[in-house]
Amino acid sequence: MALRNWIPGRSKRVEPKAFFHLHLISDSTGETLTTAARAAAAQYPNWQAVEHVTPLVRNEEQLDEALAGLDDQPGLVLYTMIDEALETRLVERCKSLAVPALNLLAPVIGMFDAFLGDTRTGTSGAQHVLDETYFSRLDGIRYAMAHDDGNLPDDLDSADVILIGISRTSKTPTSIYLGQRGVRCVNIPMVPGMELPEQITRLKKAKVVALVASVERILQVRENRLRAYDRDTEGDIYVDRASIQEELAWTRRLCQSNGWPMIDVSRRSVEETSAAILSLLSANK
Amino acid sequence: MALRNWIPGRSKRVEPKAFFHLHLISDSTGETLTTAARAAAAQYPNWQAVEHVTPLVRNEEQLDEALAGLDDQPGLVLYTMIDEALETRLVERCKSLAVPALNLLAPVIGMFDAFLGDTRTGTSGAQHVLDETYFSRLDGIRYAMAHDDGNLPDDLDSADVILIGISRTSKTPTSIYLGQRGVRCVNIPMVPGMELPEQITRLKKAKVVALVASVERILQVRENRLRAYDRDTEGDIYVDRASIQEELAWTRRLCQSNGWPMIDVSRRSVEETSAAILSLLSANK
Repeated sequence: MALRNWIPGRSKRVEPKAFFHLHLISDSTGETLTTAARAAAAQYPNWQAVEHVTPLVRNEEQLDEALAGLDDQPGLVLYTMIDEALETRLVERCKSLAVPALNLLAPVIGMFDAFLGDTRTGTSGAQHVLDETYFSRLDGIRYAMAHDDGNLPDDLDSADVILIGISRTSKTPTSIYLGQRGVRCVNIPMVPGMELPEQITRLKKAKVVALVASVERILQVRENRLRAYDRDTEGDIYVDRASIQEELAWTRRLCQSNGWPMIDVSRRSVEETSAAILSLLSANK
Repeated sequence: MALRNWIPGRSKRVEPKAFFHLHLISDSTGETLTTAARAAAAQYPNWQAVEHVTPLVRNEEQLDEALAGLDDQPGLVLYTMIDEALETRLVERCKSLAVPALNLLAPVIGMFDAFLGDTRTGTSGAQHVLDETYFSRLDGIRYAMAHDDGNLPDDLDSADVILIGISRTSKTPTSIYLGQRGVRCVNIPMVPGMELPEQITRLKKAKVVALVASVERILQVRENRLRAYDRDTEGDIYVDRASIQEELAWTRRLCQSNGWPMIDVSRRSVEETSAAILSLLSANK
């Protein structure tokens, strides 16, 4: 990559994308930094951030190692660092390299300080305590895996949400993602010619959600899927436009007669679909 | 919950924990806000944040709905909002309610603006484009599920990392989490009396990582596991201290003779274990 690509102040549109180095240095897992950096970076379609993530930086040696890469590949530094001595070391090093550095959590902590008027513990990664919430998230993942693809349909009462949908509507990754948020999720595939488990229509709570997508989208994903397994797509009903249309019509009829909400995932990421499901669940409470 | 619990400026230790309301309002999934808010909140062990998360706020109606809860349950507002008109509406509403509001991404975007000297797109949730990175993360989840618990051991060459470990060392949730980061992860259980697949010792790349934990930790998790299934723990070798010690010694011997790194998960969350594994992988590159 050419040096000029990350020079500050460059504002003209460059094809292909211009690169810049983005150093993410965390005393914890780096998750907060990564999600924030990506949300911000997505605002600049002409630029591509080259991420250098260094998690679990909790002593001087680890910090120096993380900073060593800065000499060779200068760029922006975004960090979280609770320990004050380490933060000072980091900031001074960045200053001497004339590299901008930002503590992502500083404004949030400043706000909490002012509001709570309390002292902080100064412990890194304190959000990763192995507490009840943590174990309910682990349990959520296990639950989603055990109840993937129509497994254990007798157990629908224990679920927080039941996802239904025809093949290739992202039921599995969505249920895993919800599981990680501590939501117990069952996913049941809708297969033409097979009834859904009868128990589903007798559930007390309104917790069934159907995933749908456009015919185009499903066709495309299914074709890719077959090709990945070197299967011929010609004449296969799985990738037949009219059949997919009929499958989707079936989903709509079922949802209308049972009052189940539908979410269109055609243009939604799994994270966005999950956020929409969580909103539905909290609205139903 | 009593009103006094969230009054600003309260600084004395309160038993049980004092609560405060924390409104997280996002034009995207709310993930950035949630991880940042939890990292900050973890610094105040005397306080418990009551989270009100409203994701996917992209028009005035959705914003007003999110803000409606503020009247009843005032507290801190942490938000991400790319749309300027919506942000102004949010900020003015918070001002009129005398509630502090903070745009988490504003400092990051300010830094990017100054560094890149480029204009932003102003699109919400632009990081959730369904691009190659996104699909590699979906693929990572599928891969982890397909290769869970020793499935498909013939396929070790396609993996980025192979997790081994005795029962209850968090192999499954760790591999799912790594999968979500786009890392193709196989996990293989170490069961006493069963050899590991021979192929594992012939792998070219250094990509085997063993998970271990203290005897106490494993004993505790296994006992809980058996009780969850109403199984008697008495006399079961699965929860026998000496047997667990022997299983761990076996892990250590294998790692020493093959040069595989070990990670102790006794006090680590799955996210922290995963961060440590990612560090190992990038150091081995």
